[in-house]
Amino acid sequence: MSVDPLNFVQAQSNSIVENSRLLKACRREKTDTTPVWLMRQAGRYMPEYRQLREKYSILEIIKTPELACEVTMQPINAFDLDAGIIFADILPPLEGMGLQLDFVKGEGPIIYNPVRTADDVAQLYVTPPEESLWFTLEAIKLARVELDQRGLPLIGFSGAPYTLAAYAVEGGGSANHLTVKSLMMSDPQTWHALMEKLSEVVGQYLLAQAKAGAQVLQLFDSWVGQLAPEDYRQNVMSYTRHAIEIARESGVPIIHFGTDTSGILELLRDAGGDVIGIDWRIDLDTAWARLGDGVAVQGNLDPIALFAPWPELQKRAQNILDQAGGRAGHIFNLGHGILPNTPVDNVKRLVDFVHEYQVV
Amino acid sequence: MSVDPLNFVQAQSNSIVENSRLLKACRREKTDTTPVWLMRQAGRYMPEYRQLREKYSILEIIKTPELACEVTMQPINAFDLDAGIIFADILPPLEGMGLQLDFVKGEGPIIYNPVRTADDVAQLYVTPPEESLWFTLEAIKLARVELDQRGLPLIGFSGAPYTLAAYAVEGGGSANHLTVKSLMMSDPQTWHALMEKLSEVVGQYLLAQAKAGAQVLQLFDSWVGQLAPEDYRQNVMSYTRHAIEIARESGVPIIHFGTDTSGILELLRDAGGDVIGIDWRIDLDTAWARLGDGVAVQGNLDPIALFAPWPELQKRAQNILDQAGGRAGHIFNLGHGILPNTPVDNVKRLVDFVHEYQVV
Repeated sequence: MSVDPLNFVQAQSNSIVENSRLLKACRREKTDTTPVWLMRQAGRYMPEYRQLREKYSILEIIKTPELACEVTMQPINAFDLDAGIIFADILPPLEGMGLQLDFVKGEGPIIYNPVRTADDVAQLYVTPPEESLWFTLEAIKLARVELDQRGLPLIGFSGAPYTLAAYAVEGGGSANHLTVKSLMMSDPQTWHALMEKLSEVVGQYLLAQAKAGAQVLQLFDSWVGQLAPEDYRQNVMSYTRHAIEIARESGVPIIHFGTDTSGILELLRDAGGDVIGIDWRIDLDTAWARLGDGVAVQGNLDPIALFAPWPELQKRAQNILDQAGGRAGHIFNLGHGILPNTPVDNVKRLVDFVHEYQVV
Repeated sequence: MSVDPLNFVQAQSNSIVENSRLLKACRREKTDTTPVWLMRQAGRYMPEYRQLREKYSILEIIKTPELACEVTMQPINAFDLDAGIIFADILPPLEGMGLQLDFVKGEGPIIYNPVRTADDVAQLYVTPPEESLWFTLEAIKLARVELDQRGLPLIGFSGAPYTLAAYAVEGGGSANHLTVKSLMMSDPQTWHALMEKLSEVVGQYLLAQAKAGAQVLQLFDSWVGQLAPEDYRQNVMSYTRHAIEIARESGVPIIHFGTDTSGILELLRDAGGDVIGIDWRIDLDTAWARLGDGVAVQGNLDPIALFAPWPELQKRAQNILDQAGGRAGHIFNLGHGILPNTPVDNVKRLVDFVHEYQVV
């Protein structure tokens, strides 16, 4: 029987990644030390990234697989991180649905034709991700090859249905989510039709990323903390669950992340995910006690702590690691994305410290 | 023995107010029905207020006791509310400290000389409120006369030390509190000096309002939800407690309110207050179970629910009242200030519904 050498190498690398710190932590298995990656670890705080951004817009980088792969690898080359996360954004899935997306300097994302009526929702497409988001799927294939060589897993991701709905209806960022929540409260039929389409798009997109090579998937419900628990239960939860169920067909572990979720943690867990990602607004040990032993926990350093002098930053990182207490299933991360102007040197020291620190 | 008729009337009115729904609820005594008032109940959503604003700026209204009193009474005349809250803002105490405050159209509050260094803090005044905030104290005296005639209590208020620090250091509103939290984490000496002055100013201001006639005091820690629990414990809590302790000398009940506090509820309670005000991000019954029977609870309708059709709004209000379950000590309110453009008719129906509804 002959052995295909390429398949052999692939299988070997798969096994290394399967036993990587991140994947073991997702399965709540003991690791030699705590795995760490940082949300938005590839981004504006890195000089390498800013240099590339002088030549290309965000959307150009995202839509050129070679560039997206290059940016994905920038923090991997700079720091001892335990995973790469594909360079993309949570909003491009909305483009495939027919929304016109742009990133306006100083204003963040903008959608020129926001969704407001039943007609608007009826006109939204549910395009297969292979058509509308081919660039990210290609970038995943490229980044997989690079990360395989380091024995590191690649994380794919998507915005969650509520967070995408918030952008789609508000037409951009929003301080209080008046428009999207008003739609939810005042026109339930339109709301549920919108969320049904979004959950299908999100689920299929996550599944396609796993098929393209992502070994972990993260669902970002960044704005879900704007909701009352009852609104999450009645108007959001089943759609998040549906998206996660579709993605789950891949067999790949899923991280379910939100901010401002201290009032709905158990609901988030019940909607699904192997790992629950929390922000800094709750003590990690309190959160884990509420979530129970059935899930891993990711978090939860305040991104602003990275601006503090090292001894202060170290104290805060140590406090989180002490709360996790060396339990299997803790993935160290920030409580939200890393901020522009974050000192690179602190990022390096933080990542190294997480690996070196031994809980007493 | 002759009876001074004026003092007699005053004493009678005091006794009526002492037995008003709001004050009884603050003491966790049974009331005939749930008391209700609304944060920012006097404001832009009311045509009477907008009309006045055509002639005067916000600061002109606040600093003219007759106008502040008039605006205080607008919602009392329009709705069956259980209390008036003096028309003022959380920021004027910063003016008395030497900061230059303005409200810029479309941008909200701005401080032209924000606090950034030890020197900046050293230069801040702790002016007696009778000097720097005389206008609000005068407005309280006027509004008390009006409200006494209705047998309704008057609420005085102040921003809490952290929330004031956030504005003072950021120089206005801020999405992520990078500057204020960086100061807190990087320059603890300056931070603690700033918080010491702020807690003194806040405490004295609250006390002065009670002496001027306010029968309830609310501390607004509107932005405290940006903090990790450990930061609240180490860098904020003792200052909030100090302010509350000063105010407590008045004997007047204190409502301690914050948003995004689901991760630090117990800490907020431990910092002080007879009533804890919560936002809509947590179920009221869950919050109360965590807070225990030793405090009353105020909240917690999502202000955006007021934009929904009446049956939907009613359902949401009923859900909150059912969670309170007729317990002594529930004060119905929104989870944050009422928004501009809120339909006035819904406000009226909401207030009446809270009074009419009987928990089954």
